[in-house]
Amino acid sequence: MARSETRNILKLVRDLQRRKARERRGLVVLEGRRLVEDAARAGAALEALLVAEDAAADFAAAVGVPLQSVPRRDFDAVADTDTPGGVLAVARWEPRALATLARPRAGTVLLVLDAVQDPGNVGTIIRTAHALGAAATIALDGTADVRSPKVLRSAMGSHFRHAVVETSFGELVAWIGTGARVLIAAADGVPAAPGGDAGTVLVVGSEARGARAEWTSHAHRRVAVPMRGDAESLNAAVAAGILLFELLRDVR
Amino acid sequence: MARSETRNILKLVRDLQRRKARERRGLVVLEGRRLVEDAARAGAALEALLVAEDAAADFAAAVGVPLQSVPRRDFDAVADTDTPGGVLAVARWEPRALATLARPRAGTVLLVLDAVQDPGNVGTIIRTAHALGAAATIALDGTADVRSPKVLRSAMGSHFRHAVVETSFGELVAWIGTGARVLIAAADGVPAAPGGDAGTVLVVGSEARGARAEWTSHAHRRVAVPMRGDAESLNAAVAAGILLFELLRDVR
Repeated sequence: MARSETRNILKLVRDLQRRKARERRGLVVLEGRRLVEDAARAGAALEALLVAEDAAADFAAAVGVPLQSVPRRDFDAVADTDTPGGVLAVARWEPRALATLARPRAGTVLLVLDAVQDPGNVGTIIRTAHALGAAATIALDGTADVRSPKVLRSAMGSHFRHAVVETSFGELVAWIGTGARVLIAAADGVPAAPGGDAGTVLVVGSEARGARAEWTSHAHRRVAVPMRGDAESLNAAVAAGILLFELLRDVR
Repeated sequence: MARSETRNILKLVRDLQRRKARERRGLVVLEGRRLVEDAARAGAALEALLVAEDAAADFAAAVGVPLQSVPRRDFDAVADTDTPGGVLAVARWEPRALATLARPRAGTVLLVLDAVQDPGNVGTIIRTAHALGAAATIALDGTADVRSPKVLRSAMGSHFRHAVVETSFGELVAWIGTGARVLIAAADGVPAAPGGDAGTVLVVGSEARGARAEWTSHAHRRVAVPMRGDAESLNAAVAAGILLFELLRDVR
């Protein structure tokens, strides 16, 4: 392959370290062999595949994309992880628009992330919402960028099999309307239970601050995972997982 | 305070970066204001408190330990995190011996970590086991060091309120004996349910490899969180949280 093409890909990957560039181009970086292979199996549109020379030999380019091999130091310079494995891909991926989602209906749960800042938690929650069968994960402003490399790695391919949406608080509240049951995860909440005839919207905030106060006038109940008295809190992803598990109990 | 005392503490904290030193001295490093305060509230024996000069002013030494203030660059040189907040403590902490635990009995769950390698996951699982009311968390060989700074940070003080044990597979199996129900978390398992008259031992392995094969002759059942067909797996901490939540359902 032409040397200039390799240079272009390195430049593109570096550019995609910026959120603005990811948004403008509609592209994300998938780092790690397993993530790349899983995205390919899920039908992700891979635009480029970059491999460190020492990792190229045993990476089967079974994903139908020409493989660009570069010296290890060039790979490490654009990689996001501390100890890069030597495989990354550029993939076409954008969050879905809120308008493309089906309205909340009986037996479904929409998960809302309200300013969950830790990218590892956000990715793990997307992975969890997908595995447990939530209808979508909706990231509000203040939440870690769902297109960031760390979120994509923690979600382990769920971006390509589960609806992930980005929107604002105002737009989401208008879209939900009055037909759905809105639950806020909060330390002082009651145990969660399936929603019966109404669709459920579950809002999870940051571990430190919880969901924003404006939810109060739109919410039907505050829910929590029952805990021992001397425990402070659960990790946001673990709490979201247990609450989703409870809310979706009847539809399994 | 004497300059030599400060130097000694910096040297001690650096020494405690090594697992062997933590084991020999029976000391761990707690990094971060919130973790230090929470450990102090839980009654942890703090041996030293190290603060970066720029963070010292607003850190109330309400923990009854003389505070050593050092230049920011000296603090950062011994800190474990990428962007240190400027507060750390040395605390006396060691895993409990297996022999000090009560035998598994009805209504209790002992959680076993079998070569769970990611320190963030191990800490989050300890935090989760504590919050949900597991009787103890038992780390087998191959699991991330429960005394490591990252495990302590992710567990957010649970080391000081929840029994954490380190032991070997052989010793654990001998100690469990035949009176308890042993469940192995595995992708092909059945949904988990409370144990009735028997105490429960829940074994969670690494996300990649699961629990070791030797458990087979000691286990009564393989259990799993039901998932959507196109999902590969759950994060180990989320899976452990949901399984513990189910197993402890009757005793809440």
